[in-house]
Amino acid sequence: MIAESAHIHPKARLGKDLNIGEYVVIHENVEIGDGCTIQDHCVLGVKGPRTFEPLVLGPGATIRSHSVLYEHSTIGPKLETGHHTVIRERSVVGENLRLGSYSDVEGDCTIGDFSRFHGYVHIGKGTMIGHFVWVFSFSDAANDPLPPSDLAAPVILGDGSVVCLGSILMPGCELGTGAFVVAGSRPAGKIPPGAVVAGSPGRILFHVSRLMDLDSGLSHPWMTHYRSVYPEHAQPRLDELLEEVMKTRHDYKVSRTRSK
Amino acid sequence: MIAESAHIHPKARLGKDLNIGEYVVIHENVEIGDGCTIQDHCVLGVKGPRTFEPLVLGPGATIRSHSVLYEHSTIGPKLETGHHTVIRERSVVGENLRLGSYSDVEGDCTIGDFSRFHGYVHIGKGTMIGHFVWVFSFSDAANDPLPPSDLAAPVILGDGSVVCLGSILMPGCELGTGAFVVAGSRPAGKIPPGAVVAGSPGRILFHVSRLMDLDSGLSHPWMTHYRSVYPEHAQPRLDELLEEVMKTRHDYKVSRTRSK
Amino acid sequence: MIAESAHIHPKARLGKDLNIGEYVVIHENVEIGDGCTIQDHCVLGVKGPRTFEPLVLGPGATIRSHSVLYEHSTIGPKLETGHHTVIRERSVVGENLRLGSYSDVEGDCTIGDFSRFHGYVHIGKGTMIGHFVWVFSFSDAANDPLPPSDLAAPVILGDGSVVCLGSILMPGCELGTGAFVVAGSRPAGKIPPGAVVAGSPGRILFHVSRLMDLDSGLSHPWMTHYRSVYPEHAQPRLDELLEEVMKTRHDYKVSRTRSK
Repeated sequence: MIAESAHIHPKARLGKDLNIGEYVVIHENVEIGDGCTIQDHCVLGVKGPRTFEPLVLGPGATIRSHSVLYEHSTIGPKLETGHHTVIRERSVVGENLRLGSYSDVEGDCTIGDFSRFHGYVHIGKGTMIGHFVWVFSFSDAANDPLPPSDLAAPVILGDGSVVCLGSILMPGCELGTGAFVVAGSRPAGKIPPGAVVAGSPGRILFHVSRLMDLDSGLSHPWMTHYRSVYPEHAQPRLDELLEEVMKTRHDYKVSRTRSK
Repeated sequence: MIAESAHIHPKARLGKDLNIGEYVVIHENVEIGDGCTIQDHCVLGVKGPRTFEPLVLGPGATIRSHSVLYEHSTIGPKLETGHHTVIRERSVVGENLRLGSYSDVEGDCTIGDFSRFHGYVHIGKGTMIGHFVWVFSFSDAANDPLPPSDLAAPVILGDGSVVCLGSILMPGCELGTGAFVVAGSRPAGKIPPGAVVAGSPGRILFHVSRLMDLDSGLSHPWMTHYRSVYPEHAQPRLDELLEEVMKTRHDYKVSRTRSK
Repeated sequence: MIAESAHIHPKARLGKDLNIGEYVVIHENVEIGDGCTIQDHCVLGVKGPRTFEPLVLGPGATIRSHSVLYEHSTIGPKLETGHHTVIRERSVVGENLRLGSYSDVEGDCTIGDFSRFHGYVHIGKGTMIGHFVWVFSFSDAANDPLPPSDLAAPVILGDGSVVCLGSILMPGCELGTGAFVVAGSRPAGKIPPGAVVAGSPGRILFHVSRLMDLDSGLSHPWMTHYRSVYPEHAQPRLDELLEEVMKTRHDYKVSRTRSK
């Protein structure tokens, strides 16, 4: 169902079975896959600096109200956004990204499959984000090492890494596969795979498998117990990712022995 | 006055003397009390996961532009929101909540009367908030003790408690009546009534009545001097609340004596 | 081009060569200069408490979608905003302010020329901001020294000062000309011109000219190398500003000698 009040450019290419809400604006250079829901007051296909290519939005997306997607980005199937989100130009996004309300992907970003960002997440220009990455609210992936400047040192988030509430990934920070950033931390530089990093400046504490919730007995890596939020075809990839993170457990024992 | 461009579902139940702005969308399952103002571009009655009941918005509300309220929440009289706010489903909100611009109440929350949140406040799912609570900008009430997981440890904010700028209430944190969280802190666990907590991890410093502004001579608890922002019928409740907070002053003297 | 769906009050005074997007609302008490672009879903001229004077928006502005500007503010030429921004009443803004997405200028603020704020920047009521000031994401200029209270201790940001990511300028904080606030800091009180301040509570480290990016060899003050983002007629002012900041270099040597 397409609301009568929606303003859709005649050249926009629309898939089948769309739900398009009231006062939605779809500009010219947009391709929308089948079965997408675009809620009220969204704007798709905003022109940015040096944008030419279309916004290609994969099938099955749910874009919640007041969200803004620029042209010249390619987004895989089943994108899901909160309200008031922004995705800027020249981003390449995989399958089933979830982006919380008020989150902003600044452009020139690469994001893998099944990554999940909560609200108020700011992903700086050029950030490279792997698969199954979690970023919690009020976290920021920075990119300027000498602000303000023309220098760019984008952040890299490895597959399965987790950034907790209110953390700043400093310019050039590289989180290894399955690394875990404690709430309110400010990691910089290379964080090894599976490392837990905390504090400001961020210090490496121990392997992520040592993080446990005492009440439930559940522990990290999160792929051991938190998988039902992903579809069937993602499960084998989670197995591989878990194995990869658990392999790095050894590194921490060795370094502990050496350092004492 | 209802703007001609507003899109109102014929089954929505509207009170008298409404001001409804341009391009407002009111979906089907909504009840609006008398005398409400709904500014331009707001959306009321969004469907969420497992929502059936209506959004019941009490009389005298002012909802500022680009705000989004879900169905299946009950909101008392005189709600006042900033711009670009979100209130999700299954929330029960008392009288005269004020919610600053870009603030987000995530759903399944309980909020008492006369609470006041500034901008960019993120209230996680299931948070329980008392009466006369103040939360300042960029603060977050978290709820997942082992992120990401299915575990839930919602935060509780006691009556008259204050959370200053940029603080994270860690999952399961319980702020006692009149407790005070210093800017940029990360309290966890049980914070006793009337306690001032600061730092990360949050440490309890002393009783809130020892907080003073040297220039003006004003001091906490805030109910001693900051009451004109509440209506007449709230004043006796503020007296009681003040008395309750001041009673806890004694506890701190005792514990101080014992610990040295 | 003015979109047919835009809702423009007949008494609003519009300049020439405007681009006004879909579902834009322009209220009565608004003056828009020539050559402005107002993107989809913006609202201009919102009434605030005790507002009478018009919103005067200078020529050449670009207001990105879903932004909200109140009446009773005067804004110089070439304002540029991101999406979902708010500028409240009684603000006086100079030339070419850039305001990132989700940023909020709370009212009664003074902002000089060529200042640049990234996203999620919260400028508290009454903040005084100079020329060429940079404020990065998730930073907050506070104003209440005993929250909640009626007291006001607005923040002052001197010309050319820089506030990095996630910093809180505590109530009454005064940043001197060219001062630099490290990411995640909480400066309070008077910060001398050219000082680098870090940590919480913020401590003064050394002169800003000692900040360097080792990879590129570029160093602060930023006016030495980052000037092409400003127009020709701003360049002599940057020369003066640079000279002023460099003069303060000496002060730090002296105080270092004295304190050891």
